[in-house]
Amino acid sequence: MKTLTNRSAILLIYCNDQKGLVASITEFIAKNNGNILSLDQHVDSEQKIFFMRIEWDLENFIIPPEKIGEFFKVLIADRLKMKWKLYFSDEIPKMALFVSKQGHCLSDIIARYQAGEWNVHIPLVISNHETFADVAEQAGIDFHYTPVTKENKTEQEKKQLLLLKNYDIDFVVLARYMQILSSDFVKTYQNRIINIHHSFLPAFPGAKPYHSAYQRGVKVIGATSHYVTKDLDAGPIIEQDVVRIRHTDSVEDLVRKGRDLEKIVLARAIWFHLQRKILAYANRTVIFN
Amino acid sequence: MKTLTNRSAILLIYCNDQKGLVASITEFIAKNNGNILSLDQHVDSEQKIFFMRIEWDLENFIIPPEKIGEFFKVLIADRLKMKWKLYFSDEIPKMALFVSKQGHCLSDIIARYQAGEWNVHIPLVISNHETFADVAEQAGIDFHYTPVTKENKTEQEKKQLLLLKNYDIDFVVLARYMQILSSDFVKTYQNRIINIHHSFLPAFPGAKPYHSAYQRGVKVIGATSHYVTKDLDAGPIIEQDVVRIRHTDSVEDLVRKGRDLEKIVLARAIWFHLQRKILAYANRTVIFN
Amino acid sequence: MKTLTNRSAILLIYCNDQKGLVASITEFIAKNNGNILSLDQHVDSEQKIFFMRIEWDLENFIIPPEKIGEFFKVLIADRLKMKWKLYFSDEIPKMALFVSKQGHCLSDIIARYQAGEWNVHIPLVISNHETFADVAEQAGIDFHYTPVTKENKTEQEKKQLLLLKNYDIDFVVLARYMQILSSDFVKTYQNRIINIHHSFLPAFPGAKPYHSAYQRGVKVIGATSHYVTKDLDAGPIIEQDVVRIRHTDSVEDLVRKGRDLEKIVLARAIWFHLQRKILAYANRTVIFN
Amino acid sequence: MKTLTNRSAILLIYCNDQKGLVASITEFIAKNNGNILSLDQHVDSEQKIFFMRIEWDLENFIIPPEKIGEFFKVLIADRLKMKWKLYFSDEIPKMALFVSKQGHCLSDIIARYQAGEWNVHIPLVISNHETFADVAEQAGIDFHYTPVTKENKTEQEKKQLLLLKNYDIDFVVLARYMQILSSDFVKTYQNRIINIHHSFLPAFPGAKPYHSAYQRGVKVIGATSHYVTKDLDAGPIIEQDVVRIRHTDSVEDLVRKGRDLEKIVLARAIWFHLQRKILAYANRTVIFN
Repeated sequence: MKTLTNRSAILLIYCNDQKGLVASITEFIAKNNGNILSLDQHVDSEQKIFFMRIEWDLENFIIPPEKIGEFFKVLIADRLKMKWKLYFSDEIPKMALFVSKQGHCLSDIIARYQAGEWNVHIPLVISNHETFADVAEQAGIDFHYTPVTKENKTEQEKKQLLLLKNYDIDFVVLARYMQILSSDFVKTYQNRIINIHHSFLPAFPGAKPYHSAYQRGVKVIGATSHYVTKDLDAGPIIEQDVVRIRHTDSVEDLVRKGRDLEKIVLARAIWFHLQRKILAYANRTVIFN
Repeated sequence: MKTLTNRSAILLIYCNDQKGLVASITEFIAKNNGNILSLDQHVDSEQKIFFMRIEWDLENFIIPPEKIGEFFKVLIADRLKMKWKLYFSDEIPKMALFVSKQGHCLSDIIARYQAGEWNVHIPLVISNHETFADVAEQAGIDFHYTPVTKENKTEQEKKQLLLLKNYDIDFVVLARYMQILSSDFVKTYQNRIINIHHSFLPAFPGAKPYHSAYQRGVKVIGATSHYVTKDLDAGPIIEQDVVRIRHTDSVEDLVRKGRDLEKIVLARAIWFHLQRKILAYANRTVIFN
Repeated sequence: MKTLTNRSAILLIYCNDQKGLVASITEFIAKNNGNILSLDQHVDSEQKIFFMRIEWDLENFIIPPEKIGEFFKVLIADRLKMKWKLYFSDEIPKMALFVSKQGHCLSDIIARYQAGEWNVHIPLVISNHETFADVAEQAGIDFHYTPVTKENKTEQEKKQLLLLKNYDIDFVVLARYMQILSSDFVKTYQNRIINIHHSFLPAFPGAKPYHSAYQRGVKVIGATSHYVTKDLDAGPIIEQDVVRIRHTDSVEDLVRKGRDLEKIVLARAIWFHLQRKILAYANRTVIFN
Repeated sequence: MKTLTNRSAILLIYCNDQKGLVASITEFIAKNNGNILSLDQHVDSEQKIFFMRIEWDLENFIIPPEKIGEFFKVLIADRLKMKWKLYFSDEIPKMALFVSKQGHCLSDIIARYQAGEWNVHIPLVISNHETFADVAEQAGIDFHYTPVTKENKTEQEKKQLLLLKNYDIDFVVLARYMQILSSDFVKTYQNRIINIHHSFLPAFPGAKPYHSAYQRGVKVIGATSHYVTKDLDAGPIIEQDVVRIRHTDSVEDLVRKGRDLEKIVLARAIWFHLQRKILAYANRTVIFN
């Protein structure tokens, strides 16, 4: 990664693999006087899919920023049947946090936010408990309490979706939010809801993974950050990591060690997302890192 | 661990937790002029079970080695209702290897054997393929070919069990042996058959775990060494480890990276077993390390 | 580790190795009706030193807590020439934080403190900058500003030592404090000042380790937590961990990845210290974990 | 990585960064009907150096393989002042092994060689001891004994260089070879001699790193694979990895744990080298992986 002093553009692209793809795209940038800052491409040789992330400096780039998308579409993307997204380095995404009663991921994210580690705005925390109202507000973030029961779930999700809309939220982070979102909710923010699950998926999905890990007698525990899909803990994995445990560790020790893992793994996933380094495809992710 | 120049005794013990256990055992050793070389104890505070591994120098120990078991039984173990095993550092266990057509674990084990890394004898390799007959024989190890089909499985297992008996085998290592052993076979060598499974159990049990890991899009793959029980890939885990993968890794890359993991994880499990550092209890292991 | 509901006592012991040590100590506990909760011993076979940590339940223990030290001294310790320390599980140590202008370790520690993760009081933050006055005060912790220059260093350390005394501080954590403490300061709190150094010691001691790591082209970076001694970054190591880097990582990326490592490694060291799990000896540590 | 069924060409390139580099290179391939199999580029933004590895399928490529170098030179490389190397996937490099008396890396490499894990020929083992003459010969590899003393070092290196020449060796692997090669020797095979050092460099260079690691009381040990330069253990690092240790581990345990690390880290470095994935520059490596 480079320290960018200028504004840059980022293209995320995928399409069927074919000859000349990289040449077409890089020529488009070079001819218009763009300087490539980073380029990563990957070909899934089984499925014959081409993936690319390319970032270039906009200084002296001939096409004005607001026209790049249109030009790229007409000159390159439509012809080669690409799916693509264009981002600019000076756009600051808006993130909403969903939490329940465990605060370690929330605290970690807020500390990074306040320290300016990330290029992000966090205007909104939503929770089914009031536990962290003060924590959010102390950080200058609006807190909305939406207690969820079996009966009012649909209604509360409507409220939550309205909040996300009103706050103009780009993506959602479930920072140990202990409710399952409906398919409809998930569809609205496809590949834009990041969850942290406290196990090494696909091992121990669902509730109480540390208890299950203890029972099974594993020697290593993990945490998994993934995009949320309609199937529980089954969405495209963004990041995973593990920590060793011993027979001397009780379930409480697993929970303690796991907490540190969860916050680090979630933070890495958010960072990848913010850097526009993730392309989700066929329930897997390409992480351009 | 210490470099032992003298003969030492090792006791592995478990029983219900109660006051005075460590005092009773260590007093037994101290009073008889034994010098403790290492002592590890663990209490499972949920199930109230006490576990211990204790090793002491036999030089100047008053009770003669062949009588230690009897004395310990009468003076300590029976009274406190202990389950226990006594080993001596100069006993060299006999290990048999089961292999199929993948040789990396076999080669690694033979290299360690020939280099004298382990305190072990390996008189016997059994395989359902003839692939590694030469490798075994070059290392001075007898090779027995027992091709297994659905029809002859029971019969072949009988042959295998007879071989194990004839060679006076203490424990078996399945070094990527691609056959499932029957319940009866497993029972005969309870907690004495070590398997290496090429995934991070309980994720991806059974066949083709690397393909499954690729399909699921995990970011870390693992290997698991465990004692074999009648339930496939569900026995007490001895050791696990993992390695990071990226979206650029194909299934073949997973297999390649996994091979290195498998041989290291299996070797660590064998080493623990040889050092008498493992106590299996309730489908979990206590590793005194 | 067990979840303790009762008050327990913890003994940390070391002395020359000799026969009967464990028996003497465990008999002292058993005879007085104590129930051992955990026992860890280690013998440095090179230097012939015996180390032990033993924790027992005080419920029904015959010797009253305030007399245990005296009895243990007279009956066991003096005779066997032991160095020892006695702690009780319900004592809550007092910790002071020293910080400069990097807040990630500070924030992480405060979040854990507020979440009740640790059995600790943090009454005092000392800094040579005013940057985190608000952060400390928002957490209800007194903040003292002691700007240090070459000229006033001795004087400021006097102030700092006075503060530590007035707040009755048990141990100090340097949470990325960028000043070197004098030998006299260090001596006053021997093995009671924990530092986090942002490299894998002994590689890259001193200033700007991430820049040095980048220049050297290492493939893994680390963080080290250690007790402070008079020699810079050379004290007994408590905990270390590492993270992989790639050629694509700039110095800024190393700093970013390193921050997460630093806070985790420091937190683990503090936890060990709080659990009375550390014995420092001959510039090394025994971590009873 | 893909499973290549066809012959492919690989270009490793570096030069001063400038606009249009990727476009020029990829256009050269696309226009001549080449299909890019993988492309990795990196810009060192501090030094303004551009690095690239590009691999393309030669099926249907218009320029005949033996002319690609010439055409690329004239049409692209000279104009843009590139340093570059061209390889073909069906070239099988010739590797020589240097060993002393520790055989674990040698055995591991030979096992991989015999299993066909690598695309390599190993015609030659050179050693300053006769220990592994049989091991080499059993594997069908010529063994040359060149005992080195202070007095005969220059002369023996001449012999060794002659052997390397006669066997047409492409690169050398020091598999725990305990002699220091002269500057002249090293210069002859610049960035073509791979060493494994048994520490986490730059910590503990030189002799007996495990003893030093034990003395320093580190909590993690490592191994480092690097290209050999005239300065001892100071060449460009290719790969590093670590393993945790505890206070219970003696120097012998460090040696035992380290052995496994050494062979894995060395094997990874050799694999990168064989895959033409390494570009060494300014005492650092770009690993296109």
